[in-house]
Amino acid sequence: MGRKRSTPAVVHQLTKTEKWKIGLTIFTGKILGLLVVLAIMKMLPGIMATPASAAETYTAHETSMMNSINTVWTLVAAFLVFGMQAGFVMLEAGFARSKEVVNVLLECIFDTAICGILFWAIGYAFMFSHGNGFIGKNWFFLSGAPTTYEATGIPILAHWIFQFAFADTTSTITSGAMIGRTSFRGDILYSIGVTGFIYPIIGHWAWGPDGWLALMGSPGNFFPGLGQGFRDFAGSTVVHTIGGVISLAGALVLGPRIGRIFKRDDKEKGGLPPAHNLPLAAVGAFILWFGWYGFNPGSTLSAMDADGIGRIAANTTLAACAGSLTAMLLPLWLGPNKGKYDLPFTINGLLAGLVAITCPCYWVSPLGAILIGLIAGVVVYYGTLLLEHFRIDDPVGAVPVHCMAGIWGTLSLGLFASGQYGTTGPNGADVSATVKGIFYGGGWDVFEAQLIGSAVITMSTFIIAMILMWVISKFPYPWKLRVEPAAETGPGLDIFEHGASAYATQD
Amino acid sequence: MGRKRSTPAVVHQLTKTEKWKIGLTIFTGKILGLLVVLAIMKMLPGIMATPASAAETYTAHETSMMNSINTVWTLVAAFLVFGMQAGFVMLEAGFARSKEVVNVLLECIFDTAICGILFWAIGYAFMFSHGNGFIGKNWFFLSGAPTTYEATGIPILAHWIFQFAFADTTSTITSGAMIGRTSFRGDILYSIGVTGFIYPIIGHWAWGPDGWLALMGSPGNFFPGLGQGFRDFAGSTVVHTIGGVISLAGALVLGPRIGRIFKRDDKEKGGLPPAHNLPLAAVGAFILWFGWYGFNPGSTLSAMDADGIGRIAANTTLAACAGSLTAMLLPLWLGPNKGKYDLPFTINGLLAGLVAITCPCYWVSPLGAILIGLIAGVVVYYGTLLLEHFRIDDPVGAVPVHCMAGIWGTLSLGLFASGQYGTTGPNGADVSATVKGIFYGGGWDVFEAQLIGSAVITMSTFIIAMILMWVISKFPYPWKLRVEPAAETGPGLDIFEHGASAYATQD
Amino acid sequence: MGRKRSTPAVVHQLTKTEKWKIGLTIFTGKILGLLVVLAIMKMLPGIMATPASAAETYTAHETSMMNSINTVWTLVAAFLVFGMQAGFVMLEAGFARSKEVVNVLLECIFDTAICGILFWAIGYAFMFSHGNGFIGKNWFFLSGAPTTYEATGIPILAHWIFQFAFADTTSTITSGAMIGRTSFRGDILYSIGVTGFIYPIIGHWAWGPDGWLALMGSPGNFFPGLGQGFRDFAGSTVVHTIGGVISLAGALVLGPRIGRIFKRDDKEKGGLPPAHNLPLAAVGAFILWFGWYGFNPGSTLSAMDADGIGRIAANTTLAACAGSLTAMLLPLWLGPNKGKYDLPFTINGLLAGLVAITCPCYWVSPLGAILIGLIAGVVVYYGTLLLEHFRIDDPVGAVPVHCMAGIWGTLSLGLFASGQYGTTGPNGADVSATVKGIFYGGGWDVFEAQLIGSAVITMSTFIIAMILMWVISKFPYPWKLRVEPAAETGPGLDIFEHGASAYATQD
Repeated sequence: MGRKRSTPAVVHQLTKTEKWKIGLTIFTGKILGLLVVLAIMKMLPGIMATPASAAETYTAHETSMMNSINTVWTLVAAFLVFGMQAGFVMLEAGFARSKEVVNVLLECIFDTAICGILFWAIGYAFMFSHGNGFIGKNWFFLSGAPTTYEATGIPILAHWIFQFAFADTTSTITSGAMIGRTSFRGDILYSIGVTGFIYPIIGHWAWGPDGWLALMGSPGNFFPGLGQGFRDFAGSTVVHTIGGVISLAGALVLGPRIGRIFKRDDKEKGGLPPAHNLPLAAVGAFILWFGWYGFNPGSTLSAMDADGIGRIAANTTLAACAGSLTAMLLPLWLGPNKGKYDLPFTINGLLAGLVAITCPCYWVSPLGAILIGLIAGVVVYYGTLLLEHFRIDDPVGAVPVHCMAGIWGTLSLGLFASGQYGTTGPNGADVSATVKGIFYGGGWDVFEAQLIGSAVITMSTFIIAMILMWVISKFPYPWKLRVEPAAETGPGLDIFEHGASAYATQD
Repeated sequence: MGRKRSTPAVVHQLTKTEKWKIGLTIFTGKILGLLVVLAIMKMLPGIMATPASAAETYTAHETSMMNSINTVWTLVAAFLVFGMQAGFVMLEAGFARSKEVVNVLLECIFDTAICGILFWAIGYAFMFSHGNGFIGKNWFFLSGAPTTYEATGIPILAHWIFQFAFADTTSTITSGAMIGRTSFRGDILYSIGVTGFIYPIIGHWAWGPDGWLALMGSPGNFFPGLGQGFRDFAGSTVVHTIGGVISLAGALVLGPRIGRIFKRDDKEKGGLPPAHNLPLAAVGAFILWFGWYGFNPGSTLSAMDADGIGRIAANTTLAACAGSLTAMLLPLWLGPNKGKYDLPFTINGLLAGLVAITCPCYWVSPLGAILIGLIAGVVVYYGTLLLEHFRIDDPVGAVPVHCMAGIWGTLSLGLFASGQYGTTGPNGADVSATVKGIFYGGGWDVFEAQLIGSAVITMSTFIIAMILMWVISKFPYPWKLRVEPAAETGPGLDIFEHGASAYATQD
Repeated sequence: MGRKRSTPAVVHQLTKTEKWKIGLTIFTGKILGLLVVLAIMKMLPGIMATPASAAETYTAHETSMMNSINTVWTLVAAFLVFGMQAGFVMLEAGFARSKEVVNVLLECIFDTAICGILFWAIGYAFMFSHGNGFIGKNWFFLSGAPTTYEATGIPILAHWIFQFAFADTTSTITSGAMIGRTSFRGDILYSIGVTGFIYPIIGHWAWGPDGWLALMGSPGNFFPGLGQGFRDFAGSTVVHTIGGVISLAGALVLGPRIGRIFKRDDKEKGGLPPAHNLPLAAVGAFILWFGWYGFNPGSTLSAMDADGIGRIAANTTLAACAGSLTAMLLPLWLGPNKGKYDLPFTINGLLAGLVAITCPCYWVSPLGAILIGLIAGVVVYYGTLLLEHFRIDDPVGAVPVHCMAGIWGTLSLGLFASGQYGTTGPNGADVSATVKGIFYGGGWDVFEAQLIGSAVITMSTFIIAMILMWVISKFPYPWKLRVEPAAETGPGLDIFEHGASAYATQD
């Protein structure tokens, strides 16, 4: 329609007559169009025969439009997930001590950079290409990858950037419990291990096209009698538990920061050093929540299941709300700092709610999401006390938030899946069968599959991460995992490693 | 498609080709008309039976795709609106004194959490379900709600999360003028009142499916002779005036912070305590502006009216630009602080522009948006002076920005609606009829309807909010609205209520 | 389609309805012609031969849906680009000295405000309307603009807001190297010059419908023998080089801040004053990266080329990752501050990668993007040293990041364009022909065209900007470009111009 504007013409004032003619022609044109189309349709019964099949088969135009809609959805979601980096860096820097802030900032940037390069070179290949149940063996450097990812119809590079943002999240989570005493060279080394190998290979088990945990429970695969595979819609386990467990391994191998005093009951002094900048941390939490709307709803990789993405978004919201409530009330009632409304606990409760709902978000009802979130707040509260009890120094709560609430969320599917939700058509996860948990009369199968998947991934990751961290800790200076004591006790890590303070004093 | 747009507006450059095509079409149209009429008269007399459906009915595929597009649009908009929480918390914390920052942060998180739970349980039911003109009576706990919201075709949970983000905005606005002396328990109590009852019930009047203000002016409803209902496209009144008025009631009942000195002319010392962190506040303003692109354009709940969403986005931009200009120039020229380019005033002018355009954004032209924004900047300037004159302590300017500019924006529709814009098809607001304001020769009807709606909602909200705040202020310690004087005069509210400082000093 | 945009001649008042009707009539005319001819031929089996042509024509429903998808895509991208303002203000404020922070914040808000008004009044007209190769001559105040932008099918106001966000980016970049000594009145004056005239007029050369650099290389235009026009997909030159060059002109005319000591080898003391708030700067960098996902992928103005937007997003990611790596490693190895992992350099490397990929993002492979990014990191490193050598005070690195990396990115298309990518259909840039660079055997033509375009725009902008800045510097006080020395040496610019400190001390 009038798109081809070629040679311009002369000034011409459309006369009334011409206008009238145009109007008339339009009117007759419309009538004529309808009449003629109908005439032809009636006269050729063969044409009337096709509608039924036409209604089930998508035309080339429709397929193309759907792919565009789904690509827009996936990309916007990918951008939101990437945006979580801003939230993570704020949260981690805000919770840190002021002398270790620059280190947090630069590690987060570097981890993202190295993750991008490695996920292009090997990570995506290990995780999403075909191979066997344990590892993908194709598509290194994206070479040989098809134009669209599996049956989703979205371009492979759109899928790549979405999954890169997930890998990057895992990498950033890992740094959380290791803040304040990890050398920058140590960070470089373990980051290569995490984003190049551990995350994509173990992730393949759950999300790879032939991952053994995903296929578990079906004939010819592991535990065929189980009848259920391991499900992790958006990554409570794959992203959060893996990230949190590696972080725990790092914290264990590193030991606590110098001067860190643990507080195990109300009589002892000590506890986590106070956050150097709580506004930074709180805003970071809101930005993480915002980004989670890409993380969970975007994991459909498709907007065709409109009900599904609406439900996921609502469930994500409600779990976060609920998680923050219990994590605010428990320390208020039980201490430490009884009688105070504690901001860091509330923030971590909010995040724990988000982490927990990440796995079951598609399959549970809003009420289920609230209950899962409430319990996630409890998990993060007791998890934090537990780390303090075992004298594990986790400056931001990465272990209770990501590892523990991730495990809880993964298991919760087996309890709260309502058996109502499923759809056909390409989707990021296989949601063609409905899933019913114990509380909805679905029996123990789903819970067992979740338990096996969670346990296998948690333990495998922990063992491999402990070995990785331990090996790096034995490297000769300056490549070993932990900085020299002088770096911690002097003017601090930022000056030592980066020659700069977060907040420079000026004349 | 734009059938009802009759007013000529656009200058179009007619190329030779187009002109030629028109001529040809007129000619061929006549020939064809003759041929076809002849053909049809011979062939099928009964052809008129079905024609309409073919061209106007959407196929199942098309309907499904449209729903997906609209759901993507609504959800992305919802995420942006939710993202405004990060902006609000930055703005409020940045403008606050450093000793009351943690309180601001935690209240914002808690308000969001309680809003999520209450809006799921009762708020959405009160506001959007059918009942009578004053309150919705169904869908409590979302139980019994249909799968899609009204005629929009978007899933009910997508509509829920979009509307939750609006409710949450109202809740956060409320806290603005109450910063620095409200007890946390008091915040819990009034938040339940605001997000569980006041906002959704009064909101029902304007946005409910049978709201009495929305239906006003039509036969069988209030003021049938008026011929116009109350219109509030994205919530200048429903969100901003309601939030701002409740905030004013809170500030009145609380009284000013201890030590707050008012400055009523250039000779007096005092005025608002200086913002403790202006970068935080300024970045917050930009994030709010960013989120407003979900707030206004997303309120269509549909992307089918592409012209509409483009126009709303452009109008939103221009009003914000204009608002910041007058709010920068007036204090520069008239004081306080004559000769200085004042950042807080400029920020609040920008926000006032956004608040004002929120109601009329669909129906005004870009020029109208600029004028509305310019006046919003004036409103916020004199509004701020007025509060100072009456010794009302509003630490962030919530009352001038949200209440006053909200009223201005609501009324401005009656002045600036250009009478050009309208569309059919499901939309968040009924925009099937064009709206023409006084300045475009549309007479006083629209203005009157806006005046009635604004006055009714403003006064009702004020009275109810005053009662609510007054009752809470009479609660026994520690549940009463205002903290003990010791909490304000000692180390400050953050230590007293939360046991933490925003910026901890470390060794 | 519609590639040959020649000068429109006739201005004819055609209403929206008429235009739509004409389009429909032309379309219906064609269909009718086809159908009636077939009917007259007695509707023989020949009708079965038509599906091919039917499959190429979009129905009205399909066209409408595509326009909605593309509008959603363009608007979401516009919002993300606007969101970069939050990132810029954080980056600039974070890198600044604490006494010049409020000035940075307010200039950024004011620049946005004035840009909005000017881009509505004249900027969009100069840049995107038809006129001649050097300037657009229509659509002032958007008056007379068509309902959709050219062949894209997106509403003109959606295109306007997207392009406004680009203009605003240029404006903000400009302020970067001028921080700390520019008077606010000076900022007002040069901002009007930049966003009202320089950016849109020079931008017209590359992006206008008849821009002479865009049409260069084709018959009847400049250098017809070249066979290639100047290409700048998302604005390495149009936005970043123009912004960076004007910033350089400003810094040259202003001279360095008082007290700024330059450090030209490791023995000298001095160098850029340390950033007053590195968390602010680092978070700003992440938000800029996030916003860049609107900048580059959104520049298609269409989601129909799903492969294209996926590839652009992935390339953008990889270039940023690569840029940060070289910009971290070079100062680590070569100094200044040898042996330290430098955060500001890394941040600017990341941004340089983003700037560089902005021009070639559509046409290069992921590997190409990585190489372009790696070199961008090198450019920013040596560029920064070069400015230090010439004693040019650029507080945030606007010149190396935007001007230099912008030039590099523009040229890189001539080296790395892989010759694989192109598509038909309306798109923001003409990508109907594939582009092949030197390294892929494409010969020197593309490189030459890029070199000419980059050189012409860089030099023209530099000369005009020098004149503009010089003239303003000669204005009488208080309108002259640089503040009085007392404003810099006393309590600082913030107190002098704005009567406020970024971080007020409170009792």
